[in-house]
Amino acid sequence: MANKTQTPTVPIFDSTVIDSDREDGYWVETFNFSSGDQAPGVIVSGLVSGIVEFLDNPIAQASHASEANPDDTWTKYQIAKFDSPVAVVAVDVTGNGLTDVLVCHDYGPFMLECNPEGGWITWLENPGRGNLKKSAKDASDNHWKQRKIGRWPAMHRMKAGYFTQRSYLEVIAASVVYGPHDKTTPIPIIRFQAPEKVLEATEWPRAIVDDENFTVIHEICKKKLKGPDGLDSLVVASREGTTWLYFENGSWHRQLIGIGEPKEPRQSPTSESPGSGDHWGSGGVDVGGLGDDPFAYIATLEPFHGVAAGVYTKVGRGLKDTQWKRQILDVYGTPNQLLKTGDGPGHFIVCADFDGDGDDEFLLSLYGPLDREENGESIPPPSGPHPDKGIMYYKAIDASKGLFAKWRITNESSARIAIGNFGGKGNLDLISVSYNVARYYEEPNPVVTLHLNKTPKPAPPITEGIIIPTVWDGEGLVYLALPREASSSQSLPLIEVANYALAVEVHPPGTRIPIDTGEGVKVLFGGVADINGSRTPLGTSPFPTQVSTTSEDSDLSADAETGAILLRLTPVNDTEAGEWPSAAEVPVRTTFDTSELGLDFEPLAFKKVEDLWWGEHFKGLDFYNMSGFHFRFQHDKSQIAHLQFWTAGTGVDCGVHNHTDAIFQEIHVCLSPGTGNGGMSRIKEEFEDTPPSELPNLDESAFDHVPLPELYEHGGLWHRDSYDRPIRGEMNLVSYPWHKWQAGNGENVDVWLALEFNPDLQVP
Amino acid sequence: MANKTQTPTVPIFDSTVIDSDREDGYWVETFNFSSGDQAPGVIVSGLVSGIVEFLDNPIAQASHASEANPDDTWTKYQIAKFDSPVAVVAVDVTGNGLTDVLVCHDYGPFMLECNPEGGWITWLENPGRGNLKKSAKDASDNHWKQRKIGRWPAMHRMKAGYFTQRSYLEVIAASVVYGPHDKTTPIPIIRFQAPEKVLEATEWPRAIVDDENFTVIHEICKKKLKGPDGLDSLVVASREGTTWLYFENGSWHRQLIGIGEPKEPRQSPTSESPGSGDHWGSGGVDVGGLGDDPFAYIATLEPFHGVAAGVYTKVGRGLKDTQWKRQILDVYGTPNQLLKTGDGPGHFIVCADFDGDGDDEFLLSLYGPLDREENGESIPPPSGPHPDKGIMYYKAIDASKGLFAKWRITNESSARIAIGNFGGKGNLDLISVSYNVARYYEEPNPVVTLHLNKTPKPAPPITEGIIIPTVWDGEGLVYLALPREASSSQSLPLIEVANYALAVEVHPPGTRIPIDTGEGVKVLFGGVADINGSRTPLGTSPFPTQVSTTSEDSDLSADAETGAILLRLTPVNDTEAGEWPSAAEVPVRTTFDTSELGLDFEPLAFKKVEDLWWGEHFKGLDFYNMSGFHFRFQHDKSQIAHLQFWTAGTGVDCGVHNHTDAIFQEIHVCLSPGTGNGGMSRIKEEFEDTPPSELPNLDESAFDHVPLPELYEHGGLWHRDSYDRPIRGEMNLVSYPWHKWQAGNGENVDVWLALEFNPDLQVP
Repeated sequence: MANKTQTPTVPIFDSTVIDSDREDGYWVETFNFSSGDQAPGVIVSGLVSGIVEFLDNPIAQASHASEANPDDTWTKYQIAKFDSPVAVVAVDVTGNGLTDVLVCHDYGPFMLECNPEGGWITWLENPGRGNLKKSAKDASDNHWKQRKIGRWPAMHRMKAGYFTQRSYLEVIAASVVYGPHDKTTPIPIIRFQAPEKVLEATEWPRAIVDDENFTVIHEICKKKLKGPDGLDSLVVASREGTTWLYFENGSWHRQLIGIGEPKEPRQSPTSESPGSGDHWGSGGVDVGGLGDDPFAYIATLEPFHGVAAGVYTKVGRGLKDTQWKRQILDVYGTPNQLLKTGDGPGHFIVCADFDGDGDDEFLLSLYGPLDREENGESIPPPSGPHPDKGIMYYKAIDASKGLFAKWRITNESSARIAIGNFGGKGNLDLISVSYNVARYYEEPNPVVTLHLNKTPKPAPPITEGIIIPTVWDGEGLVYLALPREASSSQSLPLIEVANYALAVEVHPPGTRIPIDTGEGVKVLFGGVADINGSRTPLGTSPFPTQVSTTSEDSDLSADAETGAILLRLTPVNDTEAGEWPSAAEVPVRTTFDTSELGLDFEPLAFKKVEDLWWGEHFKGLDFYNMSGFHFRFQHDKSQIAHLQFWTAGTGVDCGVHNHTDAIFQEIHVCLSPGTGNGGMSRIKEEFEDTPPSELPNLDESAFDHVPLPELYEHGGLWHRDSYDRPIRGEMNLVSYPWHKWQAGNGENVDVWLALEFNPDLQVP
Repeated sequence: MANKTQTPTVPIFDSTVIDSDREDGYWVETFNFSSGDQAPGVIVSGLVSGIVEFLDNPIAQASHASEANPDDTWTKYQIAKFDSPVAVVAVDVTGNGLTDVLVCHDYGPFMLECNPEGGWITWLENPGRGNLKKSAKDASDNHWKQRKIGRWPAMHRMKAGYFTQRSYLEVIAASVVYGPHDKTTPIPIIRFQAPEKVLEATEWPRAIVDDENFTVIHEICKKKLKGPDGLDSLVVASREGTTWLYFENGSWHRQLIGIGEPKEPRQSPTSESPGSGDHWGSGGVDVGGLGDDPFAYIATLEPFHGVAAGVYTKVGRGLKDTQWKRQILDVYGTPNQLLKTGDGPGHFIVCADFDGDGDDEFLLSLYGPLDREENGESIPPPSGPHPDKGIMYYKAIDASKGLFAKWRITNESSARIAIGNFGGKGNLDLISVSYNVARYYEEPNPVVTLHLNKTPKPAPPITEGIIIPTVWDGEGLVYLALPREASSSQSLPLIEVANYALAVEVHPPGTRIPIDTGEGVKVLFGGVADINGSRTPLGTSPFPTQVSTTSEDSDLSADAETGAILLRLTPVNDTEAGEWPSAAEVPVRTTFDTSELGLDFEPLAFKKVEDLWWGEHFKGLDFYNMSGFHFRFQHDKSQIAHLQFWTAGTGVDCGVHNHTDAIFQEIHVCLSPGTGNGGMSRIKEEFEDTPPSELPNLDESAFDHVPLPELYEHGGLWHRDSYDRPIRGEMNLVSYPWHKWQAGNGENVDVWLALEFNPDLQVP
C-alpha cells in the first residue's frame, strides 16, 4: 500500500561450524528424523565423494531445551554412498513417522559428461533411531536400505509433494540436460507416484509432466500457490527462463514468468565447452510472499550457476492475469564469470520470512570466484573472504518497485542453504554447506555451518491485537477477540468519568482476574465468578433487583468455557469530591488511544440532550448525554454492546419511553448518585395502558422507583418469557414496560452509564 | 502487509448547497460538459418531477482558478423532462468532445407498478455551450435533442463503456425487475452498441448479456478489473448477491462474490407488498483498490435499499482463485427498516481514494428513516439530523481483516453521490442529492450539496521519492530517478569526509543549479554547463589532464535533454585544519539517513587496506579505504557508479594495477593533498610490457606522475579508441595502462575519492 511505513529489521545470524571433517560439499537438506523430534537435523552430501550423511541435531531428542545446545556436537552418520549423488529430498515415504531420504545419483562427473545409464533415483528407508550406530566400525555399517524409484540421465533436482492429486505421494524429478552433450533437446520432467506396496515395488509408476518445453533445468521450486488447501505446483528455472508449472483441470499448464538473462548475440546454442559462456535464462528461483499474498514476488538467480540476482514483481495487475517485471538487484562475479560461463558465483536462492514480520525475505548462496586469468597466468582467489562468496539477505522495502535492502549474513562459500528450526526456538535458522566439487570449484576445507537466527521479532501491529480500537463516527469502536481465542488477557483504557477509569478487558477461559476493593466489573460477554456466584451480561434478576458490580473477593475467574469480556470501573482521583453540581463539572478524561493507527480520536464530552437530534422534548432540562463506545467482535464484526453516559440534575424526569426506535437490552450502572435517590422508575401495571400522549402527565405515584447506588446495576426491565428470554414484539423490538430515569432531590447530578446489549448476538 | 503502520487521514469535507430550488431528488451524475472544461458540473434528476437538469460548475469556463469559486452560483439548465426518469449516464456518444446524456425513463410510479411499455433509454445530444440559454422563457427551451436507444420495462441502471470490445461504445442496461409485479423472472441485462450513424439511427443494436441469472438488480458497477488496458466489466448487486460479470474469450462469465443478506425463513419469494420485508441479496456495490491491487475489497450495501454496509475481503488467496469473506461493518435503520422492507435507509455505495494515499475508501449514502409506527400512530422522523441520514466515510485500517475506521461527512439525506474534481484543485470532491420520491421517501426541501474535499494529502512515502536511500551489504545504496522524469530537484546527504560534505543530487533538464565558491561538483549522470563549458561524467580529456570540480559561475545549468545527477562537495568545518597526519584523524561523519525506512545504517569508517580481503600485499602500509556508496537508477536498478574513499600516508605506493578484477571506468577527485604532491602515476609506454611480477620493482622514473590538487579530478586513464570510447579487452574488461596512486613527500595523508562508473550503462 502506498502509505505504509516499512520497518525492516536488521538480520542477525550467528555462525557455528557443525562439520569440518569433509572431503567435499554440494547438498544440504533439512531432515526431521522422526515426527516427535524437538528440532531437525540435516542431510549433507558431496558430489565427488559420493557420501550422504545425516547430521543429527544435538537437541533433536532433548526433552528440555536447556538439556542440550544446538552448538554442541552434531553426530554424523553415513547413510549411503553413491556414485555422484546430486539432489536429496526428505519425505516420509512409508508413512511410519520416520522421514526417509531420496537421492538421485550416478550423475557422472559433469553435466555434459553425464552417465547415459545413470540418473537413478533411490530412496533410503529410515531405520529408526534405535538402529543408528554412533560408533560404527565401518562407515557403511550405518547405510540405510535402498530401493529404486526410477531414472533419467543427469537427474539433478527432485521435489516430493502432491502435485496432481492429494492422496498418493508424488515425486517430480528433472534432469539438468536431456543426456550427454545435449543441452538442446527438451528434458523430460517426470512425475513418479508412490505405489501402494512401496516396500516391495521394484520401481514407481511414472508419467511425463513435460518433455517439450524445458532445457538446462537447474532448479525446481515447490510451492502451494493456490491457497493453503491447493495442490503443490512448481516454478522451474531453466534456459527458457522462469516458468510456473501447475496442474489444473486434468492437465499441466505452463505460465512463463520471464525469460531471465536473455541470450546474447555472442552466445551459440550449440557450444558445449565449459567457460564458453553459453548460459542464458534462469538458474535458481523461489517465490516470496508479502503479507497475505503468497505469490508477491519471485526471486531468481540467472542464468545457470549465475551472476544476476533479481526479482520479478507484479505490474499492470488485473484480477485474473498477472504480468511480471524483472528487476536485476545485483550482478555478482569476476569478469570471467560475468560472461555467463556457468561458473558461478551464485548457486541457490530461497525465500522465507526470517524476521517474522509477515513478509518473505530471500537469501542468495554465493560459492565464490574462480581462478583469475591474468596475462596468461591463473591466479587463485584470495583464501579468505571475497565479495562473491557468502550468503546475502535481501529484504523488500517496496517490492512492487523492486526496492530492497541487503545484508551479508556470512562470508563463507555457500552451495545451498537448509532452513529449519535448528535452534529449537521456533526461528528460521540456516545450515549452509561450502561448495566443493572436484575439478570445478573446490572451496578449501569445506564445512557445514549452522547460522542461528537471532533477528529480533518485530512487535505485532496493533491490528493483530486482542483488542483493537478504532474511530467510529465520533465514537470509539473496540474490536475484541473471542476470549476463547485470545492467547492472554488484555486491557484497553476507554475513559475516566466521575472518578472512575473505565477499561475494556478480554480474559481467556479460566483466567484469574484480580479485582480491588472498590472496583466494579460489568461483564459484557461470557461470564465471571467469585465467592458469591457467577455473573453474566444479562443474568441479573429482573428489575427491581439491584446488585453491586464490586466483589468481596480478590479474584474473579473467567468462565471456563467462554472466558469473559468485561468493563472494569476503577476509582481514580481519590482526593476529589465524588459528586458534582453540574454535568460540566463531572470530571471526564478520554483515555481511548487510537494514535498507533494514526487516527485522531476527539475526546468525548457531555452534551445537553436538548441539542441532540432527538432531544427537542427536553428543552431546558439539566439532562446530558455522552456517547460512547461500541464493542464488537473482531471475527465477524457483530455488535456486543454500546456504552454511553448520562447525567441528570435535581428532579429531572429523563422521559418515559419503551424503546421502540432501536432493538437492545439495556442495563444501567450508577457512577455517582448525586441527586441522592435518583434511579430507574418503571410504570405500575395499572398504568400500562396510559396513552403515550398522556404519559408525561403521570406523577411519581404511577411508578415503582428504585434508587441506584454507586457501582450498582439494576436488573433488566424488558419483558421476559417463561424461559427468561426477552419477549420480542412487532419488528423484533425487545418489549419493555414504560420506564425512565428519575433524578432525586439532592443538589448534585446523577451520573450513570448505559449498556445497550445486542439481543441477537450469536457466537459459534 | 503485516508490519506496516497505517496512517489514515481524518477526512475533511466542507458543505455548500448549490441547488435548493427543487421539487424532488433522485439522481446525480458527474458531467464534464465539454472536453476543455476546467471542472465538471452535474446532471441532477427527480423521479416524480421528471426534470433532468444540468448544473453548470461556476469554474467550468474559468481560465484561472482565482476568477471563480465553486461555491458561487451553479447555473441550472433543464435539459429534458420525462415521465419518471431513473438512471443517468454521461458519455460522449457522438465523439465530438461534448458529453452527451443517457436517461432511462417511463419507469412508472413504483418498481412493482412499472410501466410494461416503458423503460425507454433515450440519449440527449449536447448542443454545445453556445446553445445553452441562461434565461430561457420556458424551462423546456433548453431541452436537448432526444434519440431512442432501446427499452425494457423498469429500466433502472446503465453503464457506458467497452465491455466486449474496444472499438464501439456500448451501453449495458439492467431493469430492476422483469416487469410489473414480477420480482422472480430473471431480468434481461442488455448490451446496446452504438451504431455507426448514431445521429440517424432509430435504435441501437442490442444483445442479451444474461437473462437467466439475476433478479431485483438494484445496482451495476463498472470497473476495469483486468488491468488498465482491459475491458470494462461489471459487478452486479441483485437479489442473488454480488456477482462479477465479465466478458472473456467470446462469452460472458459470472463469478459470485457472495450472496449478501441471506433469505430468512420468514421471507416469502412471492410477496409483493411494500413493507413486507421481502428483500435479500445485495443492493449496492463498488470495488475498492488498495495499493497496487485494484480489486482488493468489495463494498456492499445489502439488500435492496438496504441496511447492512459491509465488505468482501479476500481469504485463502491463491494465485488464480480468490475467495471472498463477507464482513458486515454496520447495520443501519429503524426497526421497521431492519425487516428489509426495501425502505432504506441506505441507497448508494462508492469507492475512491479520497485522501490520496493510494488506497480506496468508500462512501455510503443514507437517505433517512421512514415514519415510525408506534402504538398504531405514524410518527414522522425528526426534521433535523438523524443517525440514519447522511454520508458515511469508511477507511480500511486492515482491509484483509475487515477492520475499518468511520467518519460522518454530512448529516443530510443522500440518495446518490457524484464524484469529481468539482473544486478544480485535483481533489475528489462530492456532490450529493437528497432523496425525495413522492409517496415513498420525501426528504423535506431536497437540495443538491457540494462537499469540497479538504482532506490533507499524506506526505508521499520515501519509496515514492526522487532519491531513495537503502542499506547494501554495509554500504549505502541510492536509488535515483531519471532526471528527466523527476518533478523537481532533490538532494540527499551522504557523508562528510576531510572537511567536505558530500551529497547526491538529481536535477531535471534545464534546472539552474546554484554553486558556491569553493564547492565542487562531479557529474554522475547527464551533464551540467557553466560559463566555461559543459561537464559530463567521463567527458574530461584523458589523463594527464586535470580539471577543477569547482566553478567560476554562480549557477550551473542541467543539460536540457538529460538533466543531471551529481555529487556535490561542500566545504564544512572551515575553522579546522585541512590536512591530517593519519587516516584516523581525517574527520568522517556519516550523514546518510535510512531511518525513515526503519533501517539502521552503520557509520562508515576508514579501514586499513591490509585488513581487507584483497589487502595482503599492503601489510604495514599507511593506506586506508572507506567504501562507500552505490548509485543506481530506480527504474531498472542499473548501476551508475560506485563511490569510495582512500587515504595514503607519506610516500605510500598504493600498488600498480590495471583493473582486471572488475569492469569500470574510474575517476578520482582529491579531497586533501596531504602529502603535497600525491597523485596518479601512469606507467611510461616503454615499460608497458614489464612482467607483472616485476612491476613492484619499478622506480618512479618508470611512471608519469601527476599530483592532484584539492577538488581536482583527473582525466580517465583507460585506453580509448578513435571515437574516445573505452577499449574493451578480454572478458569485456576496460583496458587500462598500469597505474597507481603515489603519495608524495608531505607529512600528512592524501585523501581522495574514487568513482567507478559503469561502462555499460544504457538509458532508454
